[in-house]
Amino acid sequence: MKIAIQGELGAFSHEAALRMVPGCKPVACARSTEVFDRVERGSVAGAVIPIENSLAGSVAEHYDLLLSRKVFIQREFLLRIVHNLIAAPGVKIADLKRVYSHPVALDQCRDFFARYPKVEQVQFYDTAGSVKHLMESGLRDAAGIAAWQAAKVYGAKILQAGIEDNKQNFTRFFLIRKTRRVLPKANKMSIAFSVKNVPGALFKALSVMALRDISLSKIESRPMRGRPWEYVFYVDILRGEDEAARNALRHLGEVADLVKVLGVYPAA
Amino acid sequence: MKIAIQGELGAFSHEAALRMVPGCKPVACARSTEVFDRVERGSVAGAVIPIENSLAGSVAEHYDLLLSRKVFIQREFLLRIVHNLIAAPGVKIADLKRVYSHPVALDQCRDFFARYPKVEQVQFYDTAGSVKHLMESGLRDAAGIAAWQAAKVYGAKILQAGIEDNKQNFTRFFLIRKTRRVLPKANKMSIAFSVKNVPGALFKALSVMALRDISLSKIESRPMRGRPWEYVFYVDILRGEDEAARNALRHLGEVADLVKVLGVYPAA
Repeated sequence: MKIAIQGELGAFSHEAALRMVPGCKPVACARSTEVFDRVERGSVAGAVIPIENSLAGSVAEHYDLLLSRKVFIQREFLLRIVHNLIAAPGVKIADLKRVYSHPVALDQCRDFFARYPKVEQVQFYDTAGSVKHLMESGLRDAAGIAAWQAAKVYGAKILQAGIEDNKQNFTRFFLIRKTRRVLPKANKMSIAFSVKNVPGALFKALSVMALRDISLSKIESRPMRGRPWEYVFYVDILRGEDEAARNALRHLGEVADLVKVLGVYPAA
Repeated sequence: MKIAIQGELGAFSHEAALRMVPGCKPVACARSTEVFDRVERGSVAGAVIPIENSLAGSVAEHYDLLLSRKVFIQREFLLRIVHNLIAAPGVKIADLKRVYSHPVALDQCRDFFARYPKVEQVQFYDTAGSVKHLMESGLRDAAGIAAWQAAKVYGAKILQAGIEDNKQNFTRFFLIRKTRRVLPKANKMSIAFSVKNVPGALFKALSVMALRDISLSKIESRPMRGRPWEYVFYVDILRGEDEAARNALRHLGEVADLVKVLGVYPAA
Protein backbone atom coordinates (compact mmCIF):
# COMPACT_ATOMS: atom_id res chain seq x y z
CA MET A 1 0.00 0.00 0.00
CA LYS A 2 1.63 3.23 -1.19
CA ILE A 3 1.42 6.21 1.19
CA ALA A 4 2.71 9.63 0.10
CA ILE A 5 4.79 11.72 2.51
CA GLN A 6 6.41 15.13 2.15
CA GLY A 7 10.19 15.26 2.59
CA GLU A 8 13.07 12.79 2.50
CA LEU A 9 12.70 9.10 3.35
CA GLY A 10 13.73 8.64 6.97
CA ALA A 11 12.01 11.84 8.13
CA PHE A 12 9.45 11.90 10.94
CA SER A 13 6.63 11.64 8.37
CA HIS A 14 8.12 8.33 7.25
CA GLU A 15 8.04 7.05 10.84
CA ALA A 16 4.45 8.28 11.30
CA ALA A 17 3.37 6.57 8.05
CA LEU A 18 4.77 3.21 9.21
CA ARG A 19 3.04 3.59 12.57
CA MET A 20 -0.32 4.61 11.08
CA VAL A 21 -0.34 2.14 8.16
CA PRO A 22 1.90 -0.79 9.20
CA GLY A 23 3.68 -2.36 6.24
CA CYS A 24 2.98 0.54 3.89
CA LYS A 25 5.41 1.74 1.22
CA PRO A 26 6.12 5.46 1.73
CA VAL A 27 6.44 7.56 -1.43
CA ALA A 28 8.62 10.63 -0.83
CA CYS A 29 7.40 13.87 -2.44
CA ALA A 30 9.38 17.13 -2.50
CA ARG A 31 6.30 19.32 -2.05
CA SER A 32 3.05 19.15 -0.12
CA THR A 33 1.01 20.03 -3.22
CA GLU A 34 2.47 16.92 -4.89
CA VAL A 35 1.36 14.81 -1.89
CA PHE A 36 -2.24 16.03 -2.29
CA ASP A 37 -2.08 15.68 -6.11
CA ARG A 38 -1.13 12.02 -5.74
CA VAL A 39 -3.96 11.32 -3.30
CA GLU A 40 -6.54 12.99 -5.54
CA ARG A 41 -5.21 11.23 -8.66
CA GLY A 42 -5.26 7.89 -6.86
CA SER A 43 -1.60 7.05 -7.60
CA VAL A 44 -1.22 6.39 -3.85
CA ALA A 45 -3.70 4.83 -1.39
CA GLY A 46 -3.39 7.85 0.92
CA ALA A 47 -0.94 10.24 2.53
CA VAL A 48 0.39 10.93 6.01
CA ILE A 49 0.87 14.64 6.73
CA PRO A 50 2.00 16.58 9.81
CA ILE A 51 -0.67 19.07 10.88
CA GLU A 52 0.76 20.59 14.08
CA ASN A 53 3.70 20.33 16.45
CA SER A 54 3.43 20.99 20.18
CA LEU A 55 6.40 23.39 20.07
CA ALA A 56 6.26 24.81 16.53
CA GLY A 57 2.48 25.13 16.00
CA SER A 58 0.23 24.38 13.02
CA VAL A 59 1.29 23.61 9.45
CA ALA A 60 -0.76 26.32 7.74
CA GLU A 61 -0.13 25.05 4.22
CA HIS A 62 -1.66 21.67 5.08
CA TYR A 63 -4.78 23.30 6.53
CA ASP A 64 -5.15 25.32 3.32
CA LEU A 65 -4.79 22.16 1.23
CA LEU A 66 -7.29 20.20 3.36
CA LEU A 67 -9.79 22.96 2.61
CA SER A 68 -9.15 23.28 -1.13
CA ARG A 69 -8.63 19.63 -2.11
CA LYS A 70 -11.00 16.67 -2.30
CA VAL A 71 -9.53 14.52 0.46
CA PHE A 72 -10.85 13.20 3.78
CA ILE A 73 -9.10 12.68 7.13
CA GLN A 74 -9.43 9.07 8.23
CA ARG A 75 -7.10 8.89 11.26
CA GLU A 76 -5.01 11.07 13.54
CA PHE A 77 -1.80 10.07 15.31
CA LEU A 78 0.51 11.71 17.86
CA LEU A 79 4.19 10.98 17.29
CA ARG A 80 6.64 11.85 20.02
CA ILE A 81 9.59 13.58 18.36
CA VAL A 82 12.75 11.73 19.42
CA HIS A 83 16.03 13.15 18.14
CA ASN A 84 18.85 10.65 17.67
CA LEU A 85 22.55 11.18 17.07
CA ILE A 86 23.30 9.18 13.91
CA ALA A 87 26.63 8.45 12.16
CA ALA A 88 28.29 5.97 9.80
CA PRO A 89 28.90 2.48 11.26
CA GLY A 90 32.08 2.36 13.36
CA VAL A 91 32.14 6.11 14.08
CA LYS A 92 32.25 6.93 17.83
CA ILE A 93 31.13 10.01 19.73
CA ALA A 94 34.80 10.79 20.50
CA ASP A 95 35.46 10.99 16.72
CA LEU A 96 32.92 13.75 16.14
CA LYS A 97 34.02 17.22 15.03
CA ARG A 98 30.67 18.32 13.54
CA VAL A 99 26.97 17.52 13.91
CA TYR A 100 24.60 18.36 11.06
CA SER A 101 20.84 18.89 11.32
CA HIS A 102 17.94 21.22 10.76
CA PRO A 103 18.28 24.37 12.94
CA VAL A 104 15.10 23.49 14.86
CA ALA A 105 16.48 20.04 15.74
CA LEU A 106 19.90 21.44 16.76
CA ASP A 107 18.14 23.96 18.96
CA GLN A 108 16.10 21.20 20.63
CA CYS A 109 19.30 19.34 21.69
CA ARG A 110 21.10 22.09 23.63
CA ASP A 111 21.89 19.88 26.65
CA PHE A 112 23.74 17.45 24.38
CA PHE A 113 25.92 20.21 22.89
CA ALA A 114 26.60 21.60 26.37
CA ARG A 115 28.13 18.21 27.27
CA TYR A 116 30.27 18.20 24.07
CA PRO A 117 31.29 21.86 23.69
CA LYS A 118 34.03 21.09 21.12
CA VAL A 119 31.56 19.57 18.64
CA GLU A 120 30.56 22.13 16.00
CA GLN A 121 26.86 22.50 15.08
CA VAL A 122 26.26 22.77 11.32
CA GLN A 123 22.82 23.81 10.10
CA PHE A 124 21.31 21.67 7.37
CA TYR A 125 18.02 21.94 5.45
CA ASP A 126 16.52 18.69 6.70
CA THR A 127 17.00 16.21 9.58
CA ALA A 128 16.94 13.00 7.50
CA GLY A 129 18.82 14.84 4.73
CA SER A 130 21.74 15.43 7.11
CA VAL A 131 22.16 11.66 7.58
CA LYS A 132 21.82 11.08 3.83
CA HIS A 133 24.54 13.70 3.26
CA LEU A 134 27.10 12.29 5.69
CA MET A 135 26.61 8.75 4.38
CA GLU A 136 26.92 9.82 0.73
CA SER A 137 30.04 11.89 1.52
CA GLY A 138 31.60 9.12 3.63
CA LEU A 139 32.20 11.44 6.59
CA ARG A 140 33.92 9.75 9.56
CA ASP A 141 34.08 12.77 11.89
CA ALA A 142 30.48 13.93 11.63
CA ALA A 143 26.99 12.89 12.76
CA GLY A 144 23.44 13.98 11.99
CA ILE A 145 20.42 14.45 14.25
CA ALA A 146 17.27 12.77 12.92
CA ALA A 147 14.52 10.19 13.45
CA TRP A 148 15.72 6.60 14.03
CA GLN A 149 14.18 5.73 10.67
CA ALA A 150 16.88 7.82 8.94
CA ALA A 151 19.59 5.47 10.32
CA LYS A 152 17.73 2.50 8.87
CA VAL A 153 17.08 4.07 5.45
CA TYR A 154 20.66 5.28 4.88
CA GLY A 155 22.53 2.38 6.54
CA ALA A 156 23.82 4.46 9.44
CA LYS A 157 23.97 3.73 13.18
CA ILE A 158 22.40 5.43 16.19
CA LEU A 159 25.22 6.68 18.44
CA GLN A 160 22.88 8.04 21.10
CA ALA A 161 19.08 7.90 21.19
CA GLY A 162 16.70 10.52 22.59
CA ILE A 163 19.05 13.52 22.87
CA GLU A 164 16.22 16.08 22.75
CA ASP A 165 15.94 18.39 25.80
CA ASN A 166 12.15 18.54 25.95
CA LYS A 167 10.33 15.21 26.01
CA GLN A 168 6.98 17.01 25.54
CA ASN A 169 7.61 17.40 21.82
CA PHE A 170 4.81 15.81 19.78
CA THR A 171 3.72 16.12 16.17
CA ARG A 172 0.14 15.37 15.21
CA PHE A 173 -0.29 13.60 11.86
CA PHE A 174 -3.35 12.92 9.69
CA LEU A 175 -3.90 9.98 7.37
CA ILE A 176 -5.80 11.43 4.42
CA ARG A 177 -7.54 9.49 1.69
CA LYS A 178 -9.45 10.24 -1.48
CA THR A 179 -12.70 8.62 -0.41
CA ARG A 180 -14.76 9.46 2.62
CA ARG A 181 -14.83 6.57 5.06
CA VAL A 182 -15.60 6.94 8.74
CA LEU A 183 -13.98 4.33 10.97
CA PRO A 184 -15.89 2.69 13.85
CA LYS A 185 -15.43 4.58 17.16
CA ALA A 186 -14.81 7.85 15.32
CA ASN A 187 -15.35 10.47 18.06
CA LYS A 188 -13.61 13.57 16.73
CA MET A 189 -14.30 15.85 13.79
CA SER A 190 -12.29 18.53 12.00
CA ILE A 191 -14.30 21.21 10.24
CA ALA A 192 -13.60 24.43 8.38
CA PHE A 193 -16.04 27.30 8.04
CA SER A 194 -15.96 30.91 6.98
CA VAL A 195 -17.99 33.86 8.22
CA LYS A 196 -18.23 37.49 7.18
CA ASN A 197 -16.05 39.90 9.14
CA VAL A 198 -18.87 41.50 11.16
CA PRO A 199 -18.90 41.80 14.97
CA GLY A 200 -20.24 38.65 16.61
CA ALA A 201 -20.08 36.43 13.51
CA LEU A 202 -17.68 33.95 15.08
CA PHE A 203 -19.67 34.08 18.32
CA LYS A 204 -22.83 33.06 16.43
CA ALA A 205 -20.97 30.25 14.67
CA LEU A 206 -19.62 28.88 17.95
CA SER A 207 -23.06 29.08 19.56
CA VAL A 208 -24.19 26.13 17.41
CA MET A 209 -21.67 24.00 19.32
CA ALA A 210 -22.08 25.61 22.77
CA LEU A 211 -25.90 25.27 22.71
CA ARG A 212 -25.46 21.52 22.24
CA ASP A 213 -22.67 21.08 24.85
CA ILE A 214 -20.19 20.10 22.13
CA SER A 215 -16.56 20.65 23.19
CA LEU A 216 -13.91 22.17 20.96
CA SER A 217 -10.32 20.96 21.21
CA LYS A 218 -8.83 23.42 18.74
CA ILE A 219 -9.68 26.65 16.94
CA GLU A 220 -7.63 28.67 14.52
CA SER A 221 -8.44 31.51 12.12
CA ARG A 222 -6.71 32.01 8.77
CA PRO A 223 -7.28 34.89 6.37
CA MET A 224 -8.82 33.63 3.10
CA ARG A 225 -6.47 33.97 0.15
CA GLY A 226 -7.34 36.89 -2.07
CA ARG A 227 -10.24 37.98 0.18
CA PRO A 228 -8.74 40.44 2.67
CA TRP A 229 -11.75 40.78 4.99
CA GLU A 230 -12.85 37.19 5.17
CA TYR A 231 -11.57 34.47 7.44
CA VAL A 232 -11.74 30.72 7.51
CA PHE A 233 -11.83 28.97 10.88
CA TYR A 234 -10.45 25.52 11.50
CA VAL A 235 -12.13 23.83 14.44
CA ASP A 236 -11.80 20.36 15.99
CA ILE A 237 -14.83 19.13 17.90
CA LEU A 238 -14.88 16.20 20.31
CA ARG A 239 -17.78 14.43 18.68
CA GLY A 240 -18.37 11.81 15.99
CA GLU A 241 -21.24 11.79 13.52
CA ASP A 242 -24.05 11.68 16.07
CA GLU A 243 -27.37 13.54 16.04
CA ALA A 244 -26.07 16.54 18.02
CA ALA A 245 -23.14 16.97 15.61
CA ARG A 246 -25.41 16.69 12.56
CA ASN A 247 -27.76 19.29 14.02
CA ALA A 248 -24.85 21.58 14.88
CA LEU A 249 -23.48 21.34 11.33
CA ARG A 250 -26.90 22.09 9.80
CA HIS A 251 -27.27 25.05 12.16
CA LEU A 252 -23.72 26.20 11.27
CA GLY A 253 -24.74 26.15 7.59
CA GLU A 254 -27.35 28.82 8.40
CA VAL A 255 -24.83 31.25 9.92
CA ALA A 256 -21.63 30.52 7.96
CA ASP A 257 -20.86 31.17 4.27
CA LEU A 258 -19.00 27.92 3.83
CA VAL A 259 -18.86 24.73 5.88
CA LYS A 260 -16.62 21.76 5.07
CA VAL A 261 -16.17 18.61 7.12
CA LEU A 262 -12.47 17.80 6.70
CA GLY A 263 -12.74 14.44 8.44
CA VAL A 264 -14.33 12.30 11.15
CA TYR A 265 -11.93 9.96 12.97
CA PRO A 266 -11.10 8.26 16.28
CA ALA A 267 -9.27 10.64 18.68
CA ALA A 268 -5.61 9.67 19.15
CA MET B 1 19.17 52.37 18.97
CA LYS B 2 19.85 48.63 19.21
CA ILE B 3 17.07 46.31 18.06
CA ALA B 4 17.42 42.53 18.50
CA ILE B 5 16.39 40.20 15.65
CA GLN B 6 16.45 36.41 15.33
CA GLY B 7 18.56 35.02 12.50
CA GLU B 8 21.37 36.25 10.28
CA LEU B 9 21.88 39.90 9.37
CA GLY B 10 20.29 40.49 5.98
CA ALA B 11 17.25 38.32 6.76
CA PHE B 12 13.67 39.58 6.44
CA SER B 13 13.65 40.48 10.16
CA HIS B 14 16.58 42.83 9.47
CA GLU B 15 14.56 44.55 6.73
CA ALA B 16 11.49 44.77 8.99
CA ALA B 17 13.60 46.26 11.83
CA LEU B 18 14.92 49.03 9.55
CA ARG B 19 11.40 49.79 8.33
CA MET B 20 9.86 49.83 11.82
CA VAL B 21 12.69 51.68 13.59
CA PRO B 22 14.50 53.75 10.89
CA GLY B 23 18.21 54.14 11.60
CA CYS B 24 18.31 51.35 14.22
CA LYS B 25 21.25 49.01 14.69
CA PRO B 26 20.03 45.39 14.40
CA VAL B 27 21.60 42.88 16.79
CA ALA B 28 21.50 39.34 15.35
CA CYS B 29 20.62 36.55 17.80
CA ALA B 30 20.78 32.84 17.02
CA ARG B 31 17.69 31.99 19.09
CA SER B 32 14.35 33.61 19.83
CA THR B 33 14.80 33.07 23.57
CA GLU B 34 17.99 35.16 23.34
CA VAL B 35 16.01 37.94 21.60
CA PHE B 36 13.50 38.06 24.49
CA ASP B 37 16.31 37.78 27.11
CA ARG B 38 18.00 40.85 25.66
CA VAL B 39 14.77 42.88 25.68
CA GLU B 40 14.00 41.93 29.31
CA ARG B 41 17.60 42.60 30.41
CA GLY B 42 17.56 45.98 28.64
CA SER B 43 20.70 45.32 26.60
CA VAL B 44 18.67 46.36 23.52
CA ALA B 45 15.98 49.03 23.17
CA GLY B 46 13.55 46.49 21.74
CA ALA B 47 13.19 43.62 19.27
CA VAL B 48 11.46 43.03 15.94
CA ILE B 49 9.96 39.54 15.66
CA PRO B 50 7.91 37.79 12.94
CA ILE B 51 4.57 36.61 14.34
CA GLU B 52 2.80 35.16 11.28
CA ASN B 53 3.22 34.69 7.54
CA SER B 54 0.30 34.70 5.11
CA LEU B 55 1.42 31.40 3.56
CA ALA B 56 3.21 29.64 6.43
CA GLY B 57 1.00 30.63 9.40
CA SER B 58 1.82 31.70 12.97
CA VAL B 59 5.17 31.51 14.72
CA ALA B 60 4.03 29.49 17.73
CA GLU B 61 7.27 29.93 19.67
CA HIS B 62 6.89 33.71 19.58
CA TYR B 63 3.32 33.53 20.87
CA ASP B 64 4.51 31.35 23.76
CA LEU B 65 7.29 33.83 24.57
CA LEU B 66 4.94 36.84 24.41
CA LEU B 67 2.83 35.08 27.05
CA SER B 68 5.65 34.02 29.38
CA ARG B 69 7.97 37.06 29.19
CA LYS B 70 7.61 40.61 30.49
CA VAL B 71 7.48 42.47 27.18
CA PHE B 72 4.87 44.62 25.46
CA ILE B 73 3.93 44.98 21.78
CA GLN B 74 4.28 48.58 20.67
CA ARG B 75 3.82 48.35 16.88
CA GLU B 76 2.85 45.92 14.14
CA PHE B 77 4.10 45.96 10.55
CA LEU B 78 3.29 43.99 7.40
CA LEU B 79 6.32 43.25 5.22
CA ARG B 80 5.78 41.96 1.72
CA ILE B 81 8.19 39.07 1.21
CA VAL B 82 10.18 39.76 -1.97
CA HIS B 83 12.66 37.07 -3.01
CA ASN B 84 15.71 38.31 -4.94
CA LEU B 85 18.31 36.39 -6.92
CA ILE B 86 21.63 37.52 -5.41
CA ALA B 87 25.23 36.72 -6.46
CA ALA B 88 28.79 38.06 -6.23
CA PRO B 89 29.44 41.27 -8.24
CA GLY B 90 30.16 40.50 -11.92
CA VAL B 91 28.36 37.13 -11.91
CA LYS B 92 25.62 36.89 -14.58
CA ILE B 93 22.50 34.71 -14.76
CA ALA B 94 24.10 32.76 -17.64
CA ASP B 95 27.00 31.81 -15.29
CA LEU B 96 24.74 30.11 -12.76
CA LYS B 97 24.93 26.38 -12.17
CA ARG B 98 23.39 26.37 -8.69
CA VAL B 99 21.01 28.50 -6.60
CA TYR B 100 21.08 28.18 -2.81
CA SER B 101 18.29 29.11 -0.41
CA HIS B 102 15.96 27.91 2.31
CA PRO B 103 13.57 25.21 0.96
CA VAL B 104 10.54 27.44 1.57
CA ALA B 105 12.08 30.25 -0.52
CA LEU B 106 13.11 27.87 -3.34
CA ASP B 107 9.58 26.48 -3.37
CA GLN B 108 8.13 30.00 -3.65
CA CYS B 109 10.17 30.69 -6.84
CA ARG B 110 9.05 27.79 -9.03
CA ASP B 111 8.33 29.96 -12.09
CA PHE B 112 11.91 31.21 -12.05
CA PHE B 113 13.34 27.67 -12.00
CA ALA B 114 10.94 26.62 -14.76
CA ARG B 115 12.57 29.31 -16.98
CA TYR B 116 16.09 28.08 -16.08
CA PRO B 117 15.71 24.30 -15.92
CA LYS B 118 19.49 23.67 -16.00
CA VAL B 119 20.09 25.60 -12.78
CA GLU B 120 20.29 23.23 -9.82
CA GLN B 121 18.37 24.11 -6.61
CA VAL B 122 20.41 23.57 -3.45
CA GLN B 123 18.62 23.66 -0.10
CA PHE B 124 20.27 25.80 2.58
CA TYR B 125 19.31 26.46 6.21
CA ASP B 126 18.68 30.18 5.81
CA THR B 127 17.95 32.70 3.03
CA ALA B 128 20.46 35.39 4.09
CA GLY B 129 22.88 32.64 5.14
CA SER B 130 22.97 31.36 1.53
CA VAL B 131 24.26 34.75 0.33
CA LYS B 132 26.78 34.88 3.19
CA HIS B 133 27.97 31.40 2.20
CA LEU B 134 28.51 32.11 -1.49
CA MET B 135 30.34 35.37 -0.76
CA GLU B 136 32.62 33.75 1.85
CA SER B 137 33.35 30.82 -0.48
CA GLY B 138 33.95 33.11 -3.49
CA LEU B 139 31.52 31.16 -5.68
CA ARG B 140 31.23 32.52 -9.27
CA ASP B 141 28.68 30.00 -10.60
CA ALA B 142 26.11 30.23 -7.81
CA ALA B 143 23.47 32.60 -6.47
CA GLY B 144 21.29 32.77 -3.38
CA ILE B 145 17.64 33.75 -2.92
CA ALA B 146 17.11 36.24 -0.10
CA ALA B 147 15.89 39.69 0.96
CA TRP B 148 17.57 42.66 -0.80
CA GLN B 149 19.15 43.52 2.56
CA ALA B 150 21.30 40.38 2.30
CA ALA B 151 22.97 41.77 -0.87
CA LYS B 152 23.81 44.97 0.97
CA VAL B 153 25.11 43.27 4.13
CA TYR B 154 27.39 40.79 2.34
CA GLY B 155 28.53 43.01 -0.56
CA ALA B 156 26.66 41.02 -3.22
CA LYS B 157 24.51 42.19 -6.15
CA ILE B 158 20.86 41.61 -7.03
CA LEU B 159 20.72 39.75 -10.37
CA GLN B 160 16.93 39.73 -10.52
CA ALA B 161 14.47 41.24 -8.07
CA GLY B 162 11.04 39.87 -7.09
CA ILE B 163 11.31 36.32 -8.43
CA GLU B 164 8.63 34.97 -6.04
CA ASP B 165 5.56 33.39 -7.71
CA ASN B 166 2.94 34.63 -5.28
CA LYS B 167 2.93 38.35 -4.61
CA GLN B 168 0.43 37.87 -1.74
CA ASN B 169 3.20 36.75 0.60
CA PHE B 170 3.32 38.93 3.72
CA THR B 171 4.92 38.52 7.10
CA ARG B 172 3.52 40.35 10.10
CA PHE B 173 6.11 41.66 12.55
CA PHE B 174 5.84 43.07 16.09
CA LEU B 175 8.11 45.63 17.70
CA ILE B 176 8.33 44.55 21.35
CA ARG B 177 9.75 46.57 24.21
CA LYS B 178 10.37 46.09 27.90
CA THR B 179 8.14 48.91 29.08
CA ARG B 180 4.46 49.30 28.37
CA ARG B 181 3.83 52.35 26.22
CA VAL B 182 0.70 52.82 24.14
CA LEU B 183 1.20 54.97 21.04
CA PRO B 184 -1.39 57.59 19.98
CA LYS B 185 -4.01 56.16 17.55
CA ALA B 186 -3.55 52.66 18.98
CA ASN B 187 -6.67 50.84 17.74
CA LYS B 188 -5.77 47.17 17.98
CA MET B 189 -5.05 44.88 20.92
CA SER B 190 -3.51 41.43 21.26
CA ILE B 191 -4.58 39.41 24.28
CA ALA B 192 -4.04 35.92 25.62
CA PHE B 193 -6.42 34.09 27.93
CA SER B 194 -6.95 30.58 29.18
CA VAL B 195 -10.15 28.77 30.08
CA LYS B 196 -10.92 25.36 31.54
CA ASN B 197 -11.69 22.65 29.02
CA VAL B 198 -15.45 22.49 29.65
CA PRO B 199 -18.13 22.77 26.96
CA GLY B 200 -18.99 26.38 26.21
CA ALA B 201 -15.99 27.91 28.03
CA LEU B 202 -14.61 29.58 24.90
CA PHE B 203 -18.13 30.65 23.92
CA LYS B 204 -18.53 32.44 27.26
CA ALA B 205 -15.14 34.09 26.89
CA LEU B 206 -15.99 35.38 23.39
CA SER B 207 -19.36 36.64 24.57
CA VAL B 208 -17.58 39.45 26.46
CA MET B 209 -16.48 40.82 23.08
CA ALA B 210 -19.64 39.99 21.10
CA LEU B 211 -21.96 41.65 23.65
CA ARG B 212 -20.01 44.90 23.14
CA ASP B 213 -19.79 44.67 19.33
CA ILE B 214 -16.02 44.29 19.48
CA SER B 215 -14.58 42.63 16.35
CA LEU B 216 -11.91 39.95 16.40
CA SER B 217 -9.32 39.82 13.62
CA LYS B 218 -7.56 36.65 14.76
CA ILE B 219 -8.08 33.73 17.12
CA GLU B 220 -5.84 30.78 17.79
CA SER B 221 -5.77 28.09 20.46
CA ARG B 222 -2.57 26.53 21.81
CA PRO B 223 -2.33 23.71 24.33
CA MET B 224 -0.69 24.94 27.57
CA ARG B 225 2.68 23.35 28.21
CA GLY B 226 2.53 20.62 30.80
CA ARG B 227 -1.24 21.00 31.30
CA PRO B 228 -2.83 18.59 28.81
CA TRP B 229 -6.45 19.68 29.23
CA GLU B 230 -5.99 23.42 29.31
CA TYR B 231 -5.71 25.80 26.41
CA VAL B 232 -4.52 29.32 25.93
CA PHE B 233 -6.22 31.46 23.28
CA TYR B 234 -4.49 34.25 21.39
CA VAL B 235 -6.95 36.83 20.15
CA ASP B 236 -6.54 40.14 18.29
CA ILE B 237 -9.36 42.63 18.76
CA LEU B 238 -9.95 45.72 16.64
CA ARG B 239 -10.09 48.15 19.50
CA GLY B 240 -7.72 50.38 21.45
CA GLU B 241 -7.92 51.07 25.20
CA ASP B 242 -11.43 52.55 25.22
CA GLU B 243 -14.20 52.01 27.74
CA ALA B 244 -15.78 49.06 25.89
CA ALA B 245 -12.42 47.28 25.71
CA ARG B 246 -11.73 47.89 29.40
CA ASN B 247 -15.16 46.55 30.32
CA ALA B 248 -14.68 43.53 28.08
CA LEU B 249 -11.31 42.73 29.68
CA ARG B 250 -12.76 43.04 33.20
CA HIS B 251 -15.64 40.78 32.17
CA LEU B 252 -13.17 38.33 30.62
CA GLY B 253 -11.31 38.21 33.93
CA GLU B 254 -14.51 36.78 35.50
CA VAL B 255 -14.79 33.86 33.07
CA ALA B 256 -11.12 33.11 32.24
CA ASP B 257 -8.38 31.70 34.49
CA LEU B 258 -5.71 33.96 33.08
CA VAL B 259 -5.87 37.17 31.01
CA LYS B 260 -2.81 38.99 29.66
CA VAL B 261 -2.77 42.04 27.40
CA LEU B 262 0.20 41.39 25.09
CA GLY B 263 0.06 44.83 23.53
CA VAL B 264 -2.03 47.77 22.32
CA TYR B 265 -0.86 49.34 19.05
CA PRO B 266 -1.95 51.09 15.83
CA ALA B 267 -3.21 48.58 13.21
CA ALA B 268 -0.80 48.23 10.26
